[in-house]
Amino acid sequence: MLMTDIIIKKRDHGVLSKEEIDFFVTGFVSGSIPDYQASSLAMAIVLNGMNQEETVNLTNAFINSGDVVDLSMIKGPLVDKHSTGGVGDKTSLVLGPLVSACGAKLAKMSGRGLGHTGGTIDKMESIPGMRVVLTHQEFVDQVNKIGIAIVGQSGKLVPADKKMYALRDVTGTVESLPLIASSIMSKKIASGADSILLDVKYGSGAFMKNLDDGTALARIMVDIGRGLNRNTIAILTDMDEPLGNSIGNILEVKEAVNTLRGQGPKEFLELCLEAGAIMLGQAGIETNHTRAIGLLKSKITDGTAFQKLQEFVAAQGGDITYLEDLNMFPVSRYIKQVLVKEDGYIAKIDALGLGETAMRLGAGRQKIGDTIDYKSGIILNFHKGDAVKKGDVLLELHSDKLDEVTAAMTYVTSYFKFSKEKVIKDPIIAKVIS
Amino acid sequence: MLMTDIIIKKRDHGVLSKEEIDFFVTGFVSGSIPDYQASSLAMAIVLNGMNQEETVNLTNAFINSGDVVDLSMIKGPLVDKHSTGGVGDKTSLVLGPLVSACGAKLAKMSGRGLGHTGGTIDKMESIPGMRVVLTHQEFVDQVNKIGIAIVGQSGKLVPADKKMYALRDVTGTVESLPLIASSIMSKKIASGADSILLDVKYGSGAFMKNLDDGTALARIMVDIGRGLNRNTIAILTDMDEPLGNSIGNILEVKEAVNTLRGQGPKEFLELCLEAGAIMLGQAGIETNHTRAIGLLKSKITDGTAFQKLQEFVAAQGGDITYLEDLNMFPVSRYIKQVLVKEDGYIAKIDALGLGETAMRLGAGRQKIGDTIDYKSGIILNFHKGDAVKKGDVLLELHSDKLDEVTAAMTYVTSYFKFSKEKVIKDPIIAKVIS
Repeated sequence: MLMTDIIIKKRDHGVLSKEEIDFFVTGFVSGSIPDYQASSLAMAIVLNGMNQEETVNLTNAFINSGDVVDLSMIKGPLVDKHSTGGVGDKTSLVLGPLVSACGAKLAKMSGRGLGHTGGTIDKMESIPGMRVVLTHQEFVDQVNKIGIAIVGQSGKLVPADKKMYALRDVTGTVESLPLIASSIMSKKIASGADSILLDVKYGSGAFMKNLDDGTALARIMVDIGRGLNRNTIAILTDMDEPLGNSIGNILEVKEAVNTLRGQGPKEFLELCLEAGAIMLGQAGIETNHTRAIGLLKSKITDGTAFQKLQEFVAAQGGDITYLEDLNMFPVSRYIKQVLVKEDGYIAKIDALGLGETAMRLGAGRQKIGDTIDYKSGIILNFHKGDAVKKGDVLLELHSDKLDEVTAAMTYVTSYFKFSKEKVIKDPIIAKVIS
Repeated sequence: MLMTDIIIKKRDHGVLSKEEIDFFVTGFVSGSIPDYQASSLAMAIVLNGMNQEETVNLTNAFINSGDVVDLSMIKGPLVDKHSTGGVGDKTSLVLGPLVSACGAKLAKMSGRGLGHTGGTIDKMESIPGMRVVLTHQEFVDQVNKIGIAIVGQSGKLVPADKKMYALRDVTGTVESLPLIASSIMSKKIASGADSILLDVKYGSGAFMKNLDDGTALARIMVDIGRGLNRNTIAILTDMDEPLGNSIGNILEVKEAVNTLRGQGPKEFLELCLEAGAIMLGQAGIETNHTRAIGLLKSKITDGTAFQKLQEFVAAQGGDITYLEDLNMFPVSRYIKQVLVKEDGYIAKIDALGLGETAMRLGAGRQKIGDTIDYKSGIILNFHKGDAVKKGDVLLELHSDKLDEVTAAMTYVTSYFKFSKEKVIKDPIIAKVIS
């Protein structure tokens, strides 16, 4: 088999066989296939696509390129979730304890954030003492004991995707749904998941800018999951405005705690309940959606969900006194309010703009290795559709960097569009794909 | 400027600016742009194309990547020709002396063959003593003195194309008309040509398999020539069967000599006369096409064309006694005749099949560095449309390799299609594009 023939086949709109895909992935990881051939193939895939079978085969080849986490020692119904990422997305910190409080087992590997704000792992590390690296045995034992563990992704999982993603990043070949889908799904499956809820974000603050693109990506990922015998369901959720009120690591942890205590933003809670109900269905714990939502709500009301968060944080070394008294968390040197200039309704919020503002305030990394200031970020007081009055506090900017706060004061309002007319807001979950 | 942005622009069907193309070519040659980015861009160009302006700019950037031959010291009207290559193509060895005998100056750089049969340079070297490397001064002096010189291409011309072609060859990105056209034209222009006749071959024995593809390539090359102020004309010529009767280096030299002596195959002579007349027009020596053909014919009849070949060969050290007595050339150990099996007409000849057979007999290189057996090859006795009778000698196989000759005896007839009905033959020149 010759790599050039494989490239030419895809260039000419051919369908690659399982053997050809395995040959490419194996050779690429071993180094016998050079980067210049891999990037040429990647561009051909970006422009000519891959069908469902090719995408499943690519995902499987990625999975087989490295270690696969064995979670068979975990007793009880395993669930997992993955979000394609957005601004203010602290869902895992709420959803994990919530479904775990209902008896599901969540053994999750998560990534760090690169870009506007930190990932779940960064948010966890903003709680003093919290460990995000566990041995495999610790990981399995913790899930068996308390029902939940979340750790950083092992470097030995899916080395093919790691190498491929680094190459795609510098060769203009990131934007391909089959490549994005197989990258996400290979990591998810290699990390041991057997039922997966995918939270596919679409809108200004997400990688997928509209519902159609998001739906297409979700469809491909669900098909991959099915092709590899994983119970996979995707929800399409609105990321045209930030999720919840807080952007930034400690600010989001506080919001997660408040949500688990029954004081979270309405729409963020709604997302957690809907997603949690689907996960309970996948786990076979409660297949009736309405009853599943009721069960989840009861775990908030009776305090067991918050208690599960505390158990989880404590098990991984985190200091739970911070969770009990949120005022213990450090706060930024500068907290500046931005006021509404005239009465009206919020018509639009540029989530990406706010995410990047939060990054400049210190909440995210511009490049690998940058340090995050966990305290910094943004607190929004209003969402799309809300009525606002002149003088209302639109948002708060939190940062230790005076120059960045001062600058943000001048431009941050430009990420909002206001309207004199009432504005209809889209539901947080647009679609469920299974 | 970022290379990734340039790749993404082309991936998304954008038009690259002159600055972007220069940035890419300069960086690629210097090594600051890695191969994996260049191959990704090449694939995007293969699939999304380049417009005329981009192609001209790419050609120009290629030219500027290395030396440009200065032919300004040559007195008289400079002409040049380039063939896209085919089976049995010995045109330069006839056309050069022919137009030079009419007063045109041909200072040509030519390539070696890789593939079925040798290139012009290989054919020249099959004449004992012939030198294909001259200093620039020798080259210029020889053209001024006798009107013709043909040498091997300098390695310092168009290093960008050399590096790019090697990369395209292993990344499935050869098949792009703008890339092929700029590769050819950059070398032609860097080698000093200011008027260029392009002989674009199409058909089974050529890179372009049909007239439409050949026409498209010719159109792009003529546009490049015009865009860079070169008088450029292209002819589209039939390569659905081999050109002339001989395939293989010495065999082709002999046919060239015979043609210059007025005993060449009819269609090959016709091609040389038509192409030569266009070149004389470009040179301003005779702009009336019919009169130009008359002038060329007269140079064959009065012996000056053959005399010019002898001067040219002698000037480059070749032993012209071989040209005077073609029997002095060595012949293959095995010369086997293949006979016609039944009466009919020749309907089709697979030129590529015959070219590859000749290569296996010893006439070509399978890879760079392979040695050519100059004696070996094929002599065809019939062409498409010719009537044949059972027992006629269809062709002769020449080789020192008994196993290859024996094998070819069994399969070579399969490259011919015969018909009971009369077959109409296409004209050798299908189109002229200017």
